[in-house]
Amino acid sequence: MNQTRAVVLASRPVGEPGPESFRLEDRELPALADGQVLLRTIYLSLDPYMRGRMNASRSYAAPVEVDAVMEGGTVSEVLESRCDDLAPGDLVVAHAGWQTHAVMDGTAVRKVSVGSAPVSTALGVLGMPGFAAYAGLAEIGRVQPGETLVVAAASGAVGSAVGQIARIRGARTVGIAGGPRKVAWLTEIGFDVALDHRDPRFADRLADAVPGGIDVYFENVGGAVWDAVFPHLNDFARVPVCGLISQYNTTTAPPGPDRLPALMTAINVKRLVVRGFTQRDLLASHYEAFQREMTSWVAEGRVAYLEDVVDGLENAPRAFLGLLRGENFGKLVVRVGPEPTL
Amino acid sequence: MNQTRAVVLASRPVGEPGPESFRLEDRELPALADGQVLLRTIYLSLDPYMRGRMNASRSYAAPVEVDAVMEGGTVSEVLESRCDDLAPGDLVVAHAGWQTHAVMDGTAVRKVSVGSAPVSTALGVLGMPGFAAYAGLAEIGRVQPGETLVVAAASGAVGSAVGQIARIRGARTVGIAGGPRKVAWLTEIGFDVALDHRDPRFADRLADAVPGGIDVYFENVGGAVWDAVFPHLNDFARVPVCGLISQYNTTTAPPGPDRLPALMTAINVKRLVVRGFTQRDLLASHYEAFQREMTSWVAEGRVAYLEDVVDGLENAPRAFLGLLRGENFGKLVVRVGPEPTL
Repeated sequence: MNQTRAVVLASRPVGEPGPESFRLEDRELPALADGQVLLRTIYLSLDPYMRGRMNASRSYAAPVEVDAVMEGGTVSEVLESRCDDLAPGDLVVAHAGWQTHAVMDGTAVRKVSVGSAPVSTALGVLGMPGFAAYAGLAEIGRVQPGETLVVAAASGAVGSAVGQIARIRGARTVGIAGGPRKVAWLTEIGFDVALDHRDPRFADRLADAVPGGIDVYFENVGGAVWDAVFPHLNDFARVPVCGLISQYNTTTAPPGPDRLPALMTAINVKRLVVRGFTQRDLLASHYEAFQREMTSWVAEGRVAYLEDVVDGLENAPRAFLGLLRGENFGKLVVRVGPEPTL
Repeated sequence: MNQTRAVVLASRPVGEPGPESFRLEDRELPALADGQVLLRTIYLSLDPYMRGRMNASRSYAAPVEVDAVMEGGTVSEVLESRCDDLAPGDLVVAHAGWQTHAVMDGTAVRKVSVGSAPVSTALGVLGMPGFAAYAGLAEIGRVQPGETLVVAAASGAVGSAVGQIARIRGARTVGIAGGPRKVAWLTEIGFDVALDHRDPRFADRLADAVPGGIDVYFENVGGAVWDAVFPHLNDFARVPVCGLISQYNTTTAPPGPDRLPALMTAINVKRLVVRGFTQRDLLASHYEAFQREMTSWVAEGRVAYLEDVVDGLENAPRAFLGLLRGENFGKLVVRVGPEPTL
């Protein structure tokens, strides 16, 4: 019988999760049925959306059940296969969760295709986060040459891709991140302006950085960044809402004043588009173009990326809690097992 | 020298305007230049958007200056013409304002085209409000057969058109209005459900009326109706934001709780589209289809309309203040002068 070591959801957090929200345990895997594969996890992706899955309420996907394995994307190696298309040794992208091994349907995985880039990028710039950036911009942001785009969490997996794609599309880009090290990297990778949201004069500095207003604000943060951005949105500005990491641990509506009427009035008067999306909804319409364009941009060095690699599945909970506090620097992945030697 | 009697903006209101916000006065009109026409106003349209023009701040259009003639759409008769395309006796739609006469460029007016309908409909169901309904639905609402649409101020010029167009498109329609007389009329013109927002159990009745949730909420009201609608928005619901009459007199952000984070979270999780528009922005893309479809729907009796006609320019301020309080029943127009006898 095959075994897996897994991080399971120990209890549902109220507000900020802690180490007690998770439990590491060994489990037996079911025997392989026809069409299935046994996978060994090499890299596990840690992403903000996972916080939503820890709640009981249905978000855009079903919640993780208490005592079930935490959900997550992985790069995995096929160890055994009862599936014609996959053979032992193949590397695949799967949604195998926070565990060392998994049994999955062959139809639920796809072979890694990252060109000359490291396989871990299949979880980052060439995977779900990179695609969220690409598709949100293509479908909703529709940034035009000469326009100004603002994105926060800009050193993260999604934000850094958003800024660099927008620059390729001819936009002026303003990136926001926390702390001097991240801000310096934003400048390195070509943001026109890089701002630190921890700066006490952040709102003023943002105002100075967008003298012509903001045409696209790619929203993946919310909170204080939104407040600073909001007054500068231009007529016909687009706001793709990809995520709201600053809100994920809130449990009740905050005290007033109530900012809803001002938002609705601005939407009305400025004819704003505020639209939520998940990358999954846009696969059919944008994935093929993403794979073609992004793979070549990365190969040509036009899109840079940064990975924050943590070793060992047992460190996944701590790394995830740090991610929710903005402590990671670059796309956060856990190296669960070694890459196969070729 | 030609004269006009005009309602001018006497002072900018703070909060709710009153009779003191307006002043009736006689003015001299300039002499006709080449390409201009002298117009006599027959009908003046009174619309909620005019409240925004009374403020100093730029909305989607420039404000009316203090002591300037209040802005407004009219059906007018050409009295004199120095323009090749227009002759005395022609009826035109113009933006001649709250006055009995006006001198305008011939290029700024267009001949009335309402088929067999009364000319006043060029300010209502076949004019700007009808077009706002049509274009907002076509461009943003995109209502599909079998979907549920909700609209408030549903006995008004825009709302009644929204509901009836959506029904023609195959949607289930829920109309909201204030008071039994308006609610009864909604049922007459074919809304599947008609609700009174003054009913103390309004929110519960709305919940009962939308067991499958809401796919399109056409927003022209805001306030308490929004609060009742919000929890029932389905995944991928569309919210065209056409107006917010309940907000037009507010001067400061209301007390908490702050509803903004809950809205942004819903936009994110439910992948909502919330988008503001003005009919003017959509003329190029939708006006031709509107004119063709709406004229025939009205002629065939498939789209009903109701006009609330007030006599005399001097009564325009009082009628407008009533409009802001929801006292009109149907499209509000002022009969400024007689229709020409044919």
